[in-house]
Amino acid sequence: MATAGKLIVPEKDVHSFIIRCLEAIGTNTEHAKALADALTCADTRGIYSHGLSRIGLYVKCLENKAISDGQGVEPTIVKENISTALVDGNNILGPAIGKFAMDLAMKKAKHSGIGLVSVRGSSHFGIAGWYGLQAIENGMIGMAFTNTYSMLVSTRSKEMVLGTNPISLGAPANDGDSFVLDMATTATALGKVELKGKLGQTLPGGWAIDHEGKETRDPKAFHGLLPLGGSEESGGYKGYGLSMMVEILCGILSGSAFGLNTGNWKKGEGAVNYLWTHFSKSNMAAIFKMAEN
Amino acid sequence: MATAGKLIVPEKDVHSFIIRCLEAIGTNTEHAKALADALTCADTRGIYSHGLSRIGLYVKCLENKAISDGQGVEPTIVKENISTALVDGNNILGPAIGKFAMDLAMKKAKHSGIGLVSVRGSSHFGIAGWYGLQAIENGMIGMAFTNTYSMLVSTRSKEMVLGTNPISLGAPANDGDSFVLDMATTATALGKVELKGKLGQTLPGGWAIDHEGKETRDPKAFHGLLPLGGSEESGGYKGYGLSMMVEILCGILSGSAFGLNTGNWKKGEGAVNYLWTHFSKSNMAAIFKMAEN
Repeated sequence: MATAGKLIVPEKDVHSFIIRCLEAIGTNTEHAKALADALTCADTRGIYSHGLSRIGLYVKCLENKAISDGQGVEPTIVKENISTALVDGNNILGPAIGKFAMDLAMKKAKHSGIGLVSVRGSSHFGIAGWYGLQAIENGMIGMAFTNTYSMLVSTRSKEMVLGTNPISLGAPANDGDSFVLDMATTATALGKVELKGKLGQTLPGGWAIDHEGKETRDPKAFHGLLPLGGSEESGGYKGYGLSMMVEILCGILSGSAFGLNTGNWKKGEGAVNYLWTHFSKSNMAAIFKMAEN
Repeated sequence: MATAGKLIVPEKDVHSFIIRCLEAIGTNTEHAKALADALTCADTRGIYSHGLSRIGLYVKCLENKAISDGQGVEPTIVKENISTALVDGNNILGPAIGKFAMDLAMKKAKHSGIGLVSVRGSSHFGIAGWYGLQAIENGMIGMAFTNTYSMLVSTRSKEMVLGTNPISLGAPANDGDSFVLDMATTATALGKVELKGKLGQTLPGGWAIDHEGKETRDPKAFHGLLPLGGSEESGGYKGYGLSMMVEILCGILSGSAFGLNTGNWKKGEGAVNYLWTHFSKSNMAAIFKMAEN
């Protein structure tokens, strides 16, 4: 393998490149800007798996109409209370829906102390931590979760029944510092398993399950991801429980798809189908609280 | 070792026994009832570590005045907004404070869709799941967290800096069913490590750290608990992050003790001191949401 050269690209160039890519295929400019914000944020924080490298996937989904180009389409508030709301994303770009939901949650939090917005009809919303960072900019604590397509094999099972279902929290600190948690509730990411396979390395313990539902160190025997905590003995049922918590708050509370209904990439569906099921059915619950009670 | 005999005691007898124990040392009857509810709930759900077996510890703390007998003392609302409140527990029995906070959070949730109450000046509040169960009884989703004294060794460290910091969520389901998550953010409980030691067994992987900050399987070499996920390679930094999230929401947000300030039981303090620091400085953040948005 050749060693890849290192090329530093200014942040603003990446940002404008993403917008131009999406505009070229007819996407709403404001929605494209939200995606550019989310992807650039991921790259500048070193989460390259959720940055510019994903632009091709979003473009494919837009070209396939799996994600709406957003021309004349915005998220709608299905119902709301003083501090809560249910939002339908109407299948536009996920970060544009997420930004709408967070702005609404922060408006409610400014008024009442906390805001919670549950979203359905959404698509992949980028790194969960991006939403907490928006809260921090406004002097608030922010949490965001999303369910995803099934990759997690629950404890005592051999089937993938839940997603990587991330949990995130952003909290402001003194002198411009902050704490940002952004983590999958699986022990690791699918991409890391694949990388170990490509490098011919064995998997660390607690990462993966084979077709028989037994833990495996062999990337070739990989069937599904173990929850955070790995095996039952080392507490994997806790990661499974956390993933279930996110599923309830995102998939079920929003009246959207959950569990196996979010689509299963192992059922012979191609990349686009997999992306479609993933991108069009994931949801978000956003909780905001004013830093000052 | 002799095999312990099995004795079935009716739930109501355990409940009234706890109340009579506390009344005998002058405790407020309503506060004693809240503790009896919490401990009996733990026992009937099979969480014996947090049930009747703990009555002696609460009695000791009450006798030492580490916990207030609650005569003429109730929790107070320090400040509040439409959907949030900061409560001072005034150091009465934890479950009595917790019940006050949950009732307040549910009242706010009924009015605005969600309520969040942060508590300081609290004491050990029993199983975290008891609070979610109260939400379920009222057709709501409930979450409760608490920080605790330091037992968790953070990733790349050899010091115990955070507590077992549990996360809980209770959600109602169809036909009287429900989902209740109640889990420490450490891989296991201190009691389980001690039990392995007593039985002369080695520890499972991912549980414990020795004095050098290295993972150990030897109960005798035990120094601190690993976060959920175990070692760094298997995702332990995620459990550390979750514990930190709870610390922010409970210790810091409430303006109470956090991190090492919650007291360290390894510093030669006796059981009572350890209990005092634990019982008097832990806190709770309770989030409630109406099941119907």
